[in-house]
Amino acid sequence: MPSATALKQAREPKPLPAPNADFYQIEDTLSAEERAILTKVHDFMETRVAPIINDYWVRDAFPFELIEPLKELNIGGLNVGDYSSRLKGLVAMEMSRVDPSFTTFFGVHTGLAMGTIALLGSEEQRQKWLPPMARLEMIGCFGLTEPLVGSGTGGGLLTTAKREGDTWILNGEKKWIGNAPWCDVSIIWARDLDDNQVKGFIVENKTTPGFSVAKIENKMALKVVQNGLITMKGCRVPEANRLQNANSFRDTAHVLRETRSGVGWMSTGVQMGAYEAAVKYTQQRIQFGKPIASFQMIQDLIAKMLANVTACQALMFRLEELHGEGKLLDQHASLAKAFTTQRMRETVAWAREVHGANGIIVDNNVGRLFADAEALYSYEGTFQMQNLIVGKAATGISAFV
Amino acid sequence: MPSATALKQAREPKPLPAPNADFYQIEDTLSAEERAILTKVHDFMETRVAPIINDYWVRDAFPFELIEPLKELNIGGLNVGDYSSRLKGLVAMEMSRVDPSFTTFFGVHTGLAMGTIALLGSEEQRQKWLPPMARLEMIGCFGLTEPLVGSGTGGGLLTTAKREGDTWILNGEKKWIGNAPWCDVSIIWARDLDDNQVKGFIVENKTTPGFSVAKIENKMALKVVQNGLITMKGCRVPEANRLQNANSFRDTAHVLRETRSGVGWMSTGVQMGAYEAAVKYTQQRIQFGKPIASFQMIQDLIAKMLANVTACQALMFRLEELHGEGKLLDQHASLAKAFTTQRMRETVAWAREVHGANGIIVDNNVGRLFADAEALYSYEGTFQMQNLIVGKAATGISAFV
Amino acid sequence: MPSATALKQAREPKPLPAPNADFYQIEDTLSAEERAILTKVHDFMETRVAPIINDYWVRDAFPFELIEPLKELNIGGLNVGDYSSRLKGLVAMEMSRVDPSFTTFFGVHTGLAMGTIALLGSEEQRQKWLPPMARLEMIGCFGLTEPLVGSGTGGGLLTTAKREGDTWILNGEKKWIGNAPWCDVSIIWARDLDDNQVKGFIVENKTTPGFSVAKIENKMALKVVQNGLITMKGCRVPEANRLQNANSFRDTAHVLRETRSGVGWMSTGVQMGAYEAAVKYTQQRIQFGKPIASFQMIQDLIAKMLANVTACQALMFRLEELHGEGKLLDQHASLAKAFTTQRMRETVAWAREVHGANGIIVDNNVGRLFADAEALYSYEGTFQMQNLIVGKAATGISAFV
Amino acid sequence: MPSATALKQAREPKPLPAPNADFYQIEDTLSAEERAILTKVHDFMETRVAPIINDYWVRDAFPFELIEPLKELNIGGLNVGDYSSRLKGLVAMEMSRVDPSFTTFFGVHTGLAMGTIALLGSEEQRQKWLPPMARLEMIGCFGLTEPLVGSGTGGGLLTTAKREGDTWILNGEKKWIGNAPWCDVSIIWARDLDDNQVKGFIVENKTTPGFSVAKIENKMALKVVQNGLITMKGCRVPEANRLQNANSFRDTAHVLRETRSGVGWMSTGVQMGAYEAAVKYTQQRIQFGKPIASFQMIQDLIAKMLANVTACQALMFRLEELHGEGKLLDQHASLAKAFTTQRMRETVAWAREVHGANGIIVDNNVGRLFADAEALYSYEGTFQMQNLIVGKAATGISAFV
Repeated sequence: MPSATALKQAREPKPLPAPNADFYQIEDTLSAEERAILTKVHDFMETRVAPIINDYWVRDAFPFELIEPLKELNIGGLNVGDYSSRLKGLVAMEMSRVDPSFTTFFGVHTGLAMGTIALLGSEEQRQKWLPPMARLEMIGCFGLTEPLVGSGTGGGLLTTAKREGDTWILNGEKKWIGNAPWCDVSIIWARDLDDNQVKGFIVENKTTPGFSVAKIENKMALKVVQNGLITMKGCRVPEANRLQNANSFRDTAHVLRETRSGVGWMSTGVQMGAYEAAVKYTQQRIQFGKPIASFQMIQDLIAKMLANVTACQALMFRLEELHGEGKLLDQHASLAKAFTTQRMRETVAWAREVHGANGIIVDNNVGRLFADAEALYSYEGTFQMQNLIVGKAATGISAFV
Repeated sequence: MPSATALKQAREPKPLPAPNADFYQIEDTLSAEERAILTKVHDFMETRVAPIINDYWVRDAFPFELIEPLKELNIGGLNVGDYSSRLKGLVAMEMSRVDPSFTTFFGVHTGLAMGTIALLGSEEQRQKWLPPMARLEMIGCFGLTEPLVGSGTGGGLLTTAKREGDTWILNGEKKWIGNAPWCDVSIIWARDLDDNQVKGFIVENKTTPGFSVAKIENKMALKVVQNGLITMKGCRVPEANRLQNANSFRDTAHVLRETRSGVGWMSTGVQMGAYEAAVKYTQQRIQFGKPIASFQMIQDLIAKMLANVTACQALMFRLEELHGEGKLLDQHASLAKAFTTQRMRETVAWAREVHGANGIIVDNNVGRLFADAEALYSYEGTFQMQNLIVGKAATGISAFV
Repeated sequence: MPSATALKQAREPKPLPAPNADFYQIEDTLSAEERAILTKVHDFMETRVAPIINDYWVRDAFPFELIEPLKELNIGGLNVGDYSSRLKGLVAMEMSRVDPSFTTFFGVHTGLAMGTIALLGSEEQRQKWLPPMARLEMIGCFGLTEPLVGSGTGGGLLTTAKREGDTWILNGEKKWIGNAPWCDVSIIWARDLDDNQVKGFIVENKTTPGFSVAKIENKMALKVVQNGLITMKGCRVPEANRLQNANSFRDTAHVLRETRSGVGWMSTGVQMGAYEAAVKYTQQRIQFGKPIASFQMIQDLIAKMLANVTACQALMFRLEELHGEGKLLDQHASLAKAFTTQRMRETVAWAREVHGANGIIVDNNVGRLFADAEALYSYEGTFQMQNLIVGKAATGISAFV
Repeated sequence: MPSATALKQAREPKPLPAPNADFYQIEDTLSAEERAILTKVHDFMETRVAPIINDYWVRDAFPFELIEPLKELNIGGLNVGDYSSRLKGLVAMEMSRVDPSFTTFFGVHTGLAMGTIALLGSEEQRQKWLPPMARLEMIGCFGLTEPLVGSGTGGGLLTTAKREGDTWILNGEKKWIGNAPWCDVSIIWARDLDDNQVKGFIVENKTTPGFSVAKIENKMALKVVQNGLITMKGCRVPEANRLQNANSFRDTAHVLRETRSGVGWMSTGVQMGAYEAAVKYTQQRIQFGKPIASFQMIQDLIAKMLANVTACQALMFRLEELHGEGKLLDQHASLAKAFTTQRMRETVAWAREVHGANGIIVDNNVGRLFADAEALYSYEGTFQMQNLIVGKAATGISAFV
């Protein structure tokens, strides 16, 4: 005769497994120390960001309330610190699993702004700017893209710099600059009217006359990130704020290569978030008397989502191995950016789709990721530009100039 | 020696052609009289709706200011009038070319609400309700879908009706009901507790105690349409407001079949709008010194968009011929809904893509259509449900019950 | 007590419906007279071609045994006769449903070869050549494509013609010419060395010295069609065999436009054949104790196949309406060729897929169609060329010269 | 004044780079010793197999002439030897880059047949059978799939075994068995009529009465592999030939898991071969006066192919790390099989496509890979079965029983 416990177990079916988007256990390959950092980020995103982010997104607003708790994580120096590039990538992935806007804010500051100073600044500049930025007391942005010149297309910058004694005069516009409407300091790229070379400058947003930022309104993606149209009219910047080791447009390429890798990780994370939301929803949503996860057509989408997620993780994982060995080339990063964003578009569409009409309500988490994916797909060089960069490397022929 | 005119012409290159999304000239197949109606709608959408709709979309608001000018078009009776079904479809397509939210508002009122009364009401009911509704003095909605019962899945309604003398008592919830938060009259479907058959009722929203509507907030698609969650607690409706010729759930099928065809036309129109925006943008946007429309990769997307548009038009065109001959079956409409919405997803994604980062700013017209497409893809029966309806007809075997 | 009949019916379940790939009843739009011709072709394909064609395909051989019975159908003059262009298209579709190689043989002869003579020959030439060709006593081919010049790319022919008195001397090569290895007469396009214009010639294969044809071996698609590499070394052709109304390369465009429409119909027909094979197989193949047509994942593919088929039919249907009204332009035909072949690739892959491993055995009918589709996809102008032709019409900018 | 050398260099443009399908340098991660083995295999495939394989494929014939030179490579024991699973995978990938039929022959023998004996045989059985098989003096096959029971569907075998003393009597059919029509020894799986468990047997093809094999004819994929329909009528097999450690159907799962991983590597290799053929062709094929590799539409396909290749390599690379750590589960292998074969279908279609009509001539190398891909896509469990296995793991719900 079965025991009371056995009977109870029979009546209460085994609970369904929680979704797990790390199917090939990529995160387990970190050292214990780095794993702990990743877990810390994961928990922060789940407990602090996830509960409030949909509301900010709907209102096109940035959650300044998160900056104080973020300081406590002590990860502001991550991207310029002595960590594995795998950890840096996985942190971007984990953040984006919950909110790619947050990753963008964080990446623009710690990767693009701080990363540029670390890479192309003088020792003095590094000493001056990096510590307060790492403590998030001062937030940065990165001004390369212009209204008429996409970041992926290279060269042709219209913003100018003209030296007058120990001062540089900057004139021009920068568009789409994340964090710009509210942050403290901007890396600005401009063409020197004298030698026609592209140079980089550290500009203090709030104290530089002639420097103004208009917030870009009415976005339908990455709505949490505040993007700005920067206008510089005769901005005066001291020579001490010129990046001392940035001597040509080519020097921005180092930064962009890492940025494109970063978008690869973000696109992977977005897929993970969308996948997990989809699994949960389909385990709970009942139609025809059973969870819709029981239907083959739904499982087909679930399985294909997970395959996309896993392939992107594996691709980025191998990319970081190359990166760690100093072998990362532009075309490697372009391929990763193109592939992961293409798969992401597919994955988020499937995830939204299994939610039916409920998938268009932002509160259900997937609509936001679906929309945000479009920004990732297009920024840091469009799908077409990435493919042309890869195509040139593959065939030896350029098809874009 | 060339004349001054010739020199001028040489300097001013031939202007690029305006985009034309009616590549196979479907609209030319209308009679002159019907063509005039379509042109009137086209002009209204271009001159009245297009200039203001992005702003309403961003604010999740409905443009009530358009109702007065819409009255002047005198098309409120279109869907119950003696017009060709081709015209009705092409009007939905033309409206959706500019704004599918507007088509949804219009279709819910003139097609679902008025159409149901025309089809399933008594002569007396038709006389009473249709004229003021045709004059847009009274706006209607259609309450079938419930929180736990999708419109595509059939049967199983949880809303109940109980007759007490000449009064019916309604209890239950209806979800996703377009126009409901502000309109005047609702068609409500409920299961009669006595005979277990589904019956339809005309409910006056604003004067029926126990009838309340909560607006569904935080949508990321069709944001202009106001959708409601209707709650009915002991609503009392006179027998005179019961649709006299609606005797079972099967009677809703007539209405839904036409609705699904309608979504087919809308999805075609959305693609046309996205396509035309894309052509215009790529003719104007300069990269590497020339319009991006000059690049093969862009033309590839343009051509594939136009092929999608044209195939959807042709499919709907043939569907309406069947319709006109009284041969339209559920599975025909399901195939059209599934095919056109699938192609639409592809088309709007390509259109958004060629806009690069500018495509995520709603002001550029394409981001809104990209997002709205998701609602069309999922409502009136998901892609999966449509395919299962077609699959059952094709194989003789049901895979969903 | 149930009757014996009732019991018998209960035991014998209703047979599953036969597959029907004309879901929107396009064929019913023909006149009764034309419908009878179509039915005759349908029956011929089913009873004469289908039973033997797989075997010929495997052996790369042409079924000459079918020419006698084909003569009895009396349709050799179809494409130059006074029939609706819809009928001509539907005949190509019905033939291709069973075997696109057979349609190719028939189309090259009756459409390309006879069609060119009808369109560009003198009255005398028409009188001389068309009657025996219509009786299939003399079979023709069409020599435009060259080893280095694809048919889709226009101009640049390397084959030359040089007039000497009343004789023309032809030199050059033509590649991929269907029927050429065995047929009687070839339409050859060559560039006149004197005026640099492209002219057309009727060449008698078997009696013209210097005219030789090598069969193209080792094809993996359309294996039943015999394609030839024609070599002309000093071939002498009388002025009487020069097409009297063909004065430039532009004149071949009329022919190619119709050919591309024809490939649209063929690609539609191939999909119908693949779809019907798939439905039949999935109704019969048992896994997990039931027909695999019971599984949602299979129905998903079935429904999407049928949607592709129906959309292609509807597109071609509308194209022929334009054609009949004299409004068919190159870009219309290019769009149709590109769209239908793209959908075909999808459809035949799904059809092969539902057959599992059995789908790679040619005897199961679907592997042949899967492979043949590749030839249709690439011939008469690649997908890329068609899209560039459409893209040029759509944007006003050429991206290929 | 420029030197003669400089002038000469200017006139002779830099040669285009050779295609390289190992974009993320996966092969460089092997140890030097294992890298040498891989190089040996690579060279064998390029110099011995590539030059003759198209001809065998066209004729549905197996290249027995290659067995002697293959013996000299001394790799017959690879899959049961003490090598990294990464090497085993990369060898399958390298072989399939040139010919997946050859990999199938080799994998069936060294992986399925030898692997089963190594895993489930007794020490005595291993000693007896493995050495001659490793020397390729005796070739094996693997009989699991039956006409009515696919390998992916599990259980339900209809082949029976009945013990009589020290002899087993086998009856039944096995379908699709690679190598069977000519090889020496077969692993046969059958259901024991006494205990209903599945057991495995080593059957000597040529000396066992009642054992017959019919070659499966008319394949359109993997034509080089000879597949057989094995019929067993009262075959008598000694108890000594029963696999001593195979006690249930579950024991075949170990073997199948590795087989599915193997198909993942093969599908990756097939893509590499197709990609490299495509790059070469597009660098050489001239249209509009330049290599077609110059056109954006072609580079788009090249870049997407390379992204597919690289993602599949990275996925398999990570899978093998899990494998090496003993963490490989069925669902991991199923995901890899599904993902890589799906991407392969895309890649080979693009590769064939850039070849235009020339892509359907087998001699150009790509048509064969295009066709072969279909077998890989369907064997060892269809795409649908793999997705259902993944879907079950992901959601906790089985949708296939």
